[in-house]
Amino acid sequence: MKIGFIGLGKMGAFMVERLLIHKHEVVVYNRSPEKTNEISKIGAEPSFSLDELVSKLPSPKVVWMMIPSGDPVQKTIEELIPLLGKGDIIIDGGNSYYKDSVRRAAELEKYGINYMDAGTSGGIWGLELGYCVMAGGEKNIFDHCEPIFKSLAPENGYMYIGKAGAGHYVKMIHNGIEYGMMQAFAEGFELMHASDYNIDLQGVADLWDKGSVVRSWLLQLLANALKEDKNLSTLKDFVEDSGEGRWTVIDGIEKSVPVNVIADSLFARFRSRQDESFGGKILAALRNEFGGHSVKKK
Amino acid sequence: MKIGFIGLGKMGAFMVERLLIHKHEVVVYNRSPEKTNEISKIGAEPSFSLDELVSKLPSPKVVWMMIPSGDPVQKTIEELIPLLGKGDIIIDGGNSYYKDSVRRAAELEKYGINYMDAGTSGGIWGLELGYCVMAGGEKNIFDHCEPIFKSLAPENGYMYIGKAGAGHYVKMIHNGIEYGMMQAFAEGFELMHASDYNIDLQGVADLWDKGSVVRSWLLQLLANALKEDKNLSTLKDFVEDSGEGRWTVIDGIEKSVPVNVIADSLFARFRSRQDESFGGKILAALRNEFGGHSVKKK
Repeated sequence: MKIGFIGLGKMGAFMVERLLIHKHEVVVYNRSPEKTNEISKIGAEPSFSLDELVSKLPSPKVVWMMIPSGDPVQKTIEELIPLLGKGDIIIDGGNSYYKDSVRRAAELEKYGINYMDAGTSGGIWGLELGYCVMAGGEKNIFDHCEPIFKSLAPENGYMYIGKAGAGHYVKMIHNGIEYGMMQAFAEGFELMHASDYNIDLQGVADLWDKGSVVRSWLLQLLANALKEDKNLSTLKDFVEDSGEGRWTVIDGIEKSVPVNVIADSLFARFRSRQDESFGGKILAALRNEFGGHSVKKK
Repeated sequence: MKIGFIGLGKMGAFMVERLLIHKHEVVVYNRSPEKTNEISKIGAEPSFSLDELVSKLPSPKVVWMMIPSGDPVQKTIEELIPLLGKGDIIIDGGNSYYKDSVRRAAELEKYGINYMDAGTSGGIWGLELGYCVMAGGEKNIFDHCEPIFKSLAPENGYMYIGKAGAGHYVKMIHNGIEYGMMQAFAEGFELMHASDYNIDLQGVADLWDKGSVVRSWLLQLLANALKEDKNLSTLKDFVEDSGEGRWTVIDGIEKSVPVNVIADSLFARFRSRQDESFGGKILAALRNEFGGHSVKKK
């Protein structure tokens, strides 16, 4: 089918490429025109404004957004509203907070515009292997858009999860789990790195992928990373987060469900970004106050 | 090659079967003779005492132990010492604490007996898929025993890790990571189970296995479990642990490496086994004392 695609970052550009390979017609738009021109070389139809993008689509118009969550998504939707009409469809393929998606679906419904939230996973490997797609919204809109989901995903790799927000909700939980899995590997490999056994970490990562209980895609990626730099000596231990881990912990708080591991994984990232911890100073100061324990001065 | 095999529990019996399939000769011994008789039907050579087992092996004798860690391993080794001679080999394929393995290797060295610690992973699926083998001990002994490791493992699924204890050390870390990964899934699926979206959990587990970042063998096992019982309504939330998680946390303490996620995973298991938590009562009592907050009485 013919669709509009907004946002040609790393994820977006690869998704467009995958859609083109699967014989869809894709009209693309990106804030900076260089990426639009770039991807038009492999068959995407370029456009240089949202107006132009929408004008090139047949009705019902289907527009896929692959842009950062928060303001960028909100502003793009606000710009799209006057350009779209009854029955048209906006799909948010990014990592929006599911409550925002619920709200946006309700707002767009007033204009007769259909909204789908499509959580996607697969990272930069999705072009080759396919993206896992978790979709929320109205079932009949999902059915209409199914050819797109089917092309983006590997076999059986897309699913209608439920009403508005359900796709982004399940993607959020997915990422929360991902945080915990990553931190478990981080802790285990830090212990082995600190061991006197002089363990070949890359060898172990490769080994575990053969028949062990922890075999997983993340472990394969870890083996790749260690192959390139066996002690990760070129990296700083600075770890960003992009929202889903926080929202998963908030979900645990809202539902009174203990999510210790996911919370700890998130907090480990926060700690990684502190040059120094004021809390650590508090502890040192208190030990000094009650016990005269020595402190390190700057 | 011809080896002796002690311990025909679920793991042990499947390993013997796999060794037989790979054309090794296996003399078996188990404390209860029923299992010995059972497995002799598929080609294992039965023995009904350690003495008999050892007498049926050519020199250098190779004996694989697949028995519970702690006392059972210690006592079996003590019984084997007078039966074995210089150059013979004992392999501990179970989940012994690596420090015990270091100590045992040193003790057995006095008798000229070689000791290998071989951590194995793969659970009850190992018969079909192979066991991931992590081996510690002397390299030349590893080389001698390599045909066994090779037969037990899938392709490239065995590795010489290092000197005595290194195999069990890496297996311990493996299991610590496994605890964290399992708990991450546990928390994420509990949130989805508590969600108003009425999410098809088994469908999501199946879906994520197709191209998502969290795809893993554990996720496939979870999909299996949910296929059989979609709300796990037949299970109690009672979770055992068998030592490796504890030892991994102790390793973190010994090395001053924060292992929050692995520790939390272990503590979640402890909590699952408490009918009631005295700590919880303390909290309720204190809230009542300072704030007059209501408490629940028995």
